[in-house]
Parts: sequence; structure tokens; C-alpha cells
Amino acid sequence: MKIKESYERIKNNFQLSPVQIVLISYIALILIGSILLKLPISTTKDISFLDALFTATSATTVTGLIVLDTPKDFTFFGQIIILLLIQIGGLGYMTMTTFFLLMLRKKASIKERMILAESLNYPGIAGVVRFLKRVFSIVIIIEIIGAFALLIDFIKEYPLEKAVYLSIFHSISAFNNAGFSLFSDNLMKYKSDIYLNFVIAILIIVGGIGFYVITELILYFKKEITRISTHTKIVIYFSLFLIVWGAISILISEFNHYKGLWSYNWSDRIIISLFTSVSSRTAGFNTIDFSILSESTLFIIIILMFIGASPGGTGGGVKTITVSVVGLAILNYLKGKKDVNVFKRRINPNIIYKAMVILALAFLYNTLITLTIVRVEEKPFIASLFEVVSAFSTVGLSVGLPNGLSLSADFSPFGKILIILTMIVGRVGILGFALALSGKQKESYIKYPEARIVL
Amino acid sequence: MKIKESYERIKNNFQLSPVQIVLISYIALILIGSILLKLPISTTKDISFLDALFTATSATTVTGLIVLDTPKDFTFFGQIIILLLIQIGGLGYMTMTTFFLLMLRKKASIKERMILAESLNYPGIAGVVRFLKRVFSIVIIIEIIGAFALLIDFIKEYPLEKAVYLSIFHSISAFNNAGFSLFSDNLMKYKSDIYLNFVIAILIIVGGIGFYVITELILYFKKEITRISTHTKIVIYFSLFLIVWGAISILISEFNHYKGLWSYNWSDRIIISLFTSVSSRTAGFNTIDFSILSESTLFIIIILMFIGASPGGTGGGVKTITVSVVGLAILNYLKGKKDVNVFKRRINPNIIYKAMVILALAFLYNTLITLTIVRVEEKPFIASLFEVVSAFSTVGLSVGLPNGLSLSADFSPFGKILIILTMIVGRVGILGFALALSGKQKESYIKYPEARIVL
Ligand SMILES: [K+]
Ligand SMILES: [K+]
Repeated sequence: MKIKESYERIKNNFQLSPVQIVLISYIALILIGSILLKLPISTTKDISFLDALFTATSATTVTGLIVLDTPKDFTFFGQIIILLLIQIGGLGYMTMTTFFLLMLRKKASIKERMILAESLNYPGIAGVVRFLKRVFSIVIIIEIIGAFALLIDFIKEYPLEKAVYLSIFHSISAFNNAGFSLFSDNLMKYKSDIYLNFVIAILIIVGGIGFYVITELILYFKKEITRISTHTKIVIYFSLFLIVWGAISILISEFNHYKGLWSYNWSDRIIISLFTSVSSRTAGFNTIDFSILSESTLFIIIILMFIGASPGGTGGGVKTITVSVVGLAILNYLKGKKDVNVFKRRINPNIIYKAMVILALAFLYNTLITLTIVRVEEKPFIASLFEVVSAFSTVGLSVGLPNGLSLSADFSPFGKILIILTMIVGRVGILGFALALSGKQKESYIKYPEARIVL
Repeated sequence: MKIKESYERIKNNFQLSPVQIVLISYIALILIGSILLKLPISTTKDISFLDALFTATSATTVTGLIVLDTPKDFTFFGQIIILLLIQIGGLGYMTMTTFFLLMLRKKASIKERMILAESLNYPGIAGVVRFLKRVFSIVIIIEIIGAFALLIDFIKEYPLEKAVYLSIFHSISAFNNAGFSLFSDNLMKYKSDIYLNFVIAILIIVGGIGFYVITELILYFKKEITRISTHTKIVIYFSLFLIVWGAISILISEFNHYKGLWSYNWSDRIIISLFTSVSSRTAGFNTIDFSILSESTLFIIIILMFIGASPGGTGGGVKTITVSVVGLAILNYLKGKKDVNVFKRRINPNIIYKAMVILALAFLYNTLITLTIVRVEEKPFIASLFEVVSAFSTVGLSVGLPNGLSLSADFSPFGKILIILTMIVGRVGILGFALALSGKQKESYIKYPEARIVL
């Protein structure tokens, strides 16, 4: 009896929590990717293992920071590896494996459902398998539509085969908010192309708004459900607000800065600022060289990056919901009200508490890493902060180098390793990462009747 | 009957809350100070009203940012005005007036006690008048001791009259964490003077640790009380930790930076980093030219400034207690515990909530003002952030100009006004300011038996 008890206790102690499994699976995928990218057939020149690791991490975490020139330094084979890492990483490695496992076995265990819920950021485990299948069809359909939409543009410029490849690559990269591009200058030469800007922006937004929101909206328009959840309402309103706020702030910040955004005509200024606002909240494509922007503009972009996309999507950051919940809680506190209400629903204090913990941890983490990077790499403060937040929020933008690479390309091995770590922390989520390290089980989600919100 | 009711309602609506009264009294004092400093007998040259306003605000809020050279541009009369503003502002204008009112009347009304409690950051109104009297004796005794201690040093260099004046001025300026100096290069020429560094540091620490903590410690050592409160324990341990952490971080950050701290010998490096660590948490004296420090060092100092001193003292910042409470709450959350405990006492969730709101508001405010300053003044990002946080935390340090003035001296009128506003917001407290604006009464303090903490 006693032996059995101790055995059970040891077994429980060694059992990994869902968030630990998600973390380990990411690391495993990154290592496999690094080895594949280090193979001679992946690259056109000899690369270090650290740069392969950096690229694999950047792709798997859908960040898009680059220390190598994707179209030039990687072969077609290497590019396909990167694309696969983006697709697997964007959707979540565990999501993928569970999906294929389910195709063989048809039934998921409780534990698998928990891991899946963790990986998909789905509230609760009831219905998570059906949700997963929906997510898969949505991803495939949207990426195909996106590729066709891009093809219309690329076919004008390139032969069919090349145009198809470019379309598929950029559709997947945009929907997964990866920011990888097959052009050395990213999307800078398409800065005035309203159609392409629009298609990419829509892919970014849909990918970043969260699968939960997308499926709910689909069900709502199909009239299978009659009410939009508080979560979805907050996400949509706040995302719209951020896009408009970001674009206007960038315009104000660059006003009369003739070496920066003002070096373009009015039409370009507006398209670029709108696209930058959308892309900063974690896609990471750029249509302008960030090193010509003023420091106040870079700071605005840092704020947008830090906030990031919405939970349960392909984007990163502390998430729109987290920031809105804390914002609502502050307003509420100043008004002296007891309950935090939004859209006639009450937000549970535990959610508010959790949101504040996420913000504080994210702030602390970025501060610490930036401090170390500034000290070690001796790059300008704002560019270093930009690089760290970009990695943390898996954005991939950079106040980069003249050759189109990210600032990280100039970092020492130690600096590169810090950025690699930051991308992983950012993708798993700072709270998830801290919980995985502390070894505590994440409390299981409870469905609160008052407001359905996922952080 | 109805008329009387409406009258009462109107009267209540127009009645100012304690925090609003504190805010208005600060503004009134600043305006009187500005007019006095604008008088021809106050200055040796013609100054603008804006610069007089800036100086009066900087003195009243005990910040110490300067747009004019205190020893050169102000006459003895002007310097005495500045010293009076520091003393009245440091102790709290309301504290002063109530004290003199009580000397005449002997009895304070409930409302007066509430304002006093707000002004002194005292928990509750019971015993606040006795507390006020204790505070007064403590301030006078410590400032006299401080002046004598400084005299020992200054007498070696200056004739008696001048030495006495310097000693009194710097004792008051240090104890009130004002950072104003009668030397154009602040305390730079005393960088190696261990004795002076020590005396100033002690005055800064005692002034910044909060009157509540000091009186409690005195009562404890007099054996009038038998238990040190949780509040005092947290303040002492965290303050000690911050001083050591700050000094070590500065040393690491400047390691081998031969244009910076490493241009001095080892003894100076240690004294300067210790003094800077103490002074950054809101005194604002400097013994080194901050413009030679590396960006990572400036960032460390920004963190120290942002945290600031302890509540209910002469210092500013978001306060040690606020940061410790949030830190404890995060650790607790990661451990998955229900209650936040410290020193065998439980911290009330309302306190944690309040601490998080203060941090978030402070962060938001500093971000917004920095963004505007960077945009408008076109100064380097890190120097601008430094200036804003310095004003917000009423520190007064600056990555200043070659002539010893603060960076603000180079700002446009709009930038100067933003810094003036920030100093006032910082002195009243960001939460107090927001509550004063929102016009809601601050909820009255409840004494929780589990842990006595004042934010
Ligand atoms: K990205
Ligand atoms: K000060």
C-alpha cells in the first residue's frame, strides 16, 4: 500500500503538464528543423549551426527575424523546410500531431484534449476535437483563397511556376503571421500596390484574430449560434481600434519627417502606415525600411508589437484581450465600481488578475533581456528594445541592417541565443513558460457564465 | 424640503475630495512660488515666467530638474524661496498648513484629518494628528543633525557663514529628496568624499523611507510597540535589496567602459555606483556626469527611478511597496497559491489590485509623455525617457546639457509644460491624480488585520 502510494507520487511528480509538453514539442521541432537546415542541400553557402538554429526557431515560432537572406542563402529545399516549420509552428505542433493521431485512432484521451486545448488556447476541453477539425478546414481554405488572390498579382510579373510558388509561400507566411518573404527586401517594392497590401493585410488579420473568433463568427453567420461572445466582441473592437490608432499615430509621428515616411507621396504614406500598423501586431512584413523612421515612430511600433494579436491565433504578443481587460479594470477602479463590466457582462476577477500577471511578467522579461542585449551588443537602445520586443511578440520586424537582415544578424552568439530563447518564450507565452518552468499545473479553465474570455 | 435636498446635492457635488484639495494646494503653492521667483530680486538675470514656473514646480514637487543654474542665476533671496518651496513641498503643503492651524485651534475636524491622512499617506484617520506632530519633530531634528554633519565637511573649504548656509541648504535638499544643489555641477566634485557621500545618502534614505516607517522604528526601539508592521518590514528589506542591486548592476553595466564609470579608479567606481543607486530612487543628486554613462546604465537608473522611494516620505516613484506587492503576487500566482503571504501575513487582494493599477497607470503615463517628448523635442529616445521618468518620479536626474542644466532646459515651451505637468502628477501620485480628475472620492482606508500596507 505504502509503496504504491510513493510510486504514484513519483509518477505524478514526473508527469509533464500540458504546457510543458507544448514547450518540449516546440523545442524538439526546432532542433529537427535546425538539423535539416544545416544540411548542405538546404543552403547555397556554408552556415553555422547557430544560424540554422536561429532560422529554425524564427520559422517555427512564426517570428520572421532573419540572420540569413531567405531567397539567396537557402535553396528551394531549404525554403520548403522553412515553410513547413512555419505551417507546423503556426498552427501549433501539438495541434498537428493530435490531428493526424485522431485520423488514425478517432478518439482522443482527456490528457490529449487538455494538451490540445492548451495548444489551441481553447477554453475547456469539451468540444475541443470538433473545434480542431474546424480549425483545419478553415486554415486550408483560407490559405488556398489567399494564394489565388496573390497569384492574380504575381502572375503579372513572374512566369506561372514561380508565381504559384511565390503565392503559396506568401499566403502561408501571411496567414501564419510569419513575416518570412522570398524577396530580400521583404515587401518594400510592393509598398504602393494597394491590392497586394490589402490581400496580405486580410490574411494577417484573419490569422491573428484567433481560431475561436473565426469559428464563432462563421457559426453566427450560419445562424447556428445566436449570440456573439464577449471575448469575440472585445477582440474585434479592440483590434479595429488598434489598427486605426496605429496608422494615425505613425502618420502624426512621421509628419514632416522628410527623411522618413514623408519621403513618399501622400497615397504611399497612408498605405504604408496602415500596412505597418496591421503588420506590427505580429505579422512582421515591412513595406518601408525601418531604419529611416524616427525614434517616436519606432516606439509606437514597439507598443503595437508588445500588444500583439489575439489569443488562439497565429500571432504573438501579450494579446489584445489581456490589454483590454487590464484597461477596463483600470477604468473601473478609477470610477470606483465594484464589478468590471463590458458589453453587459461581468469580467471575473481571476481573469483580471491573470491579465495583470501576464502584463507584468512580459514587461519584466523584455526589460531584463533588453538590458542584457544593450550591455552585450552595444547597439542603440531603441533598436535593441525593438529587436527584443519583436522576438518576444514573434513579430520579426527589425531596425535592421543595410543588407536587409535583422539586427540580430550582427549579434554575438550569446545575443543570438537570447533572441532565440525570447522567440520560444514569446510563442509559448510568458505565463505558460513561467508555469512550465515552475512545474505547476496550470489551473484548469472554468467556464464562467458571466463573460467568456480567454487570455 | 425639496429645495434643501437639491442644495445639499449641489453642495456635495461641489465639495472637493481630499486628493483634489491636495492637488489644488500644490498648484496654488507652485503659482505663488513662480511669481516670487519671477521678481527681479530673485534672479541675477531676466528669466521667462515659464522658467520661473518650471523652477517653482521642480522645487515644490522636490524634483530637482533645472532649467536655470541655481547658484548663478538666482540671488540669495531666490535661493531661499526655492529652499522654502522644497521644505513646504517635501513635507506636503497641507501638512504644513494643518500643523499651523492646529497650533492655533488645537482640534482638527474629520475632513481635515482625512486631508492630512491623504497628504501624509497615513493609513486611516485615527491618530493622524499625533502622527503629524511626531513627523514635525523628526523632520526638524534630522535636518539639524544633517546640517551639522555636513558643516564638518564644508567648514574645511568655506568661511563659516557660507559653510553654514551650504550645510543647511543641502541637508534640507537631501532629506526632502529634492536634489537641488548650490554647486553648478551638483555634487560631482565630491565624488570621492566618502564622508559627504555617506551623510547625504543617509539623509536621502531616511527621508525617502517614509515617516510611518521612521516613527514605527522609533517607537519599536523605545519599546512602546512590540511588533514591526509588515509594511515596514517590506520597505526596509526591499529598499536594502534595491540599493545593493542598483550598485552591482551599474558596476556590471559599466564594466570596462573606459569612457564612462571606468575612467575613475576602483574606489571611486564603488562609491559612485552606490551613491547613484541610492540617489536615483528619488533624491536626484549626482556625483558623475550622466551623459558619459552607457545606455544600459541609463536604463538601470531609469528602472531605479521608476520604482522610487517608499510611500509617505519625501520621495516619489511608483514606490517600493507597490513593486514588492506586485512581485509577491506574481510569484504567488506562478506557485498556484490562493493567498499572497509575506512575513506570515496575508496581503489583502484589494491592495494587490490597487498596486497593479498604479503600475499600469504609471507605465501608460510615462509611455505617452515620452512618446510625445521624443516626437516634439527630437532628442535621443533614451535621454527623453530618462527625463520623463525623472520628472514623474520627482528624481531630478538628467542626461543633461554640457552646462550642467537638465535636458528640459533645451525643450520647447510645450515640452517644458509637459515636464511641469509630469512633476505635479508624480508628486500627487498617478492614482491620486487620476482620482482627482475623475472626481470620485477615494475609498476610505480600511484597516485590514492581516497585513498593514500603505500604497
Ligand atoms: K511574425
Ligand atoms: K528629487
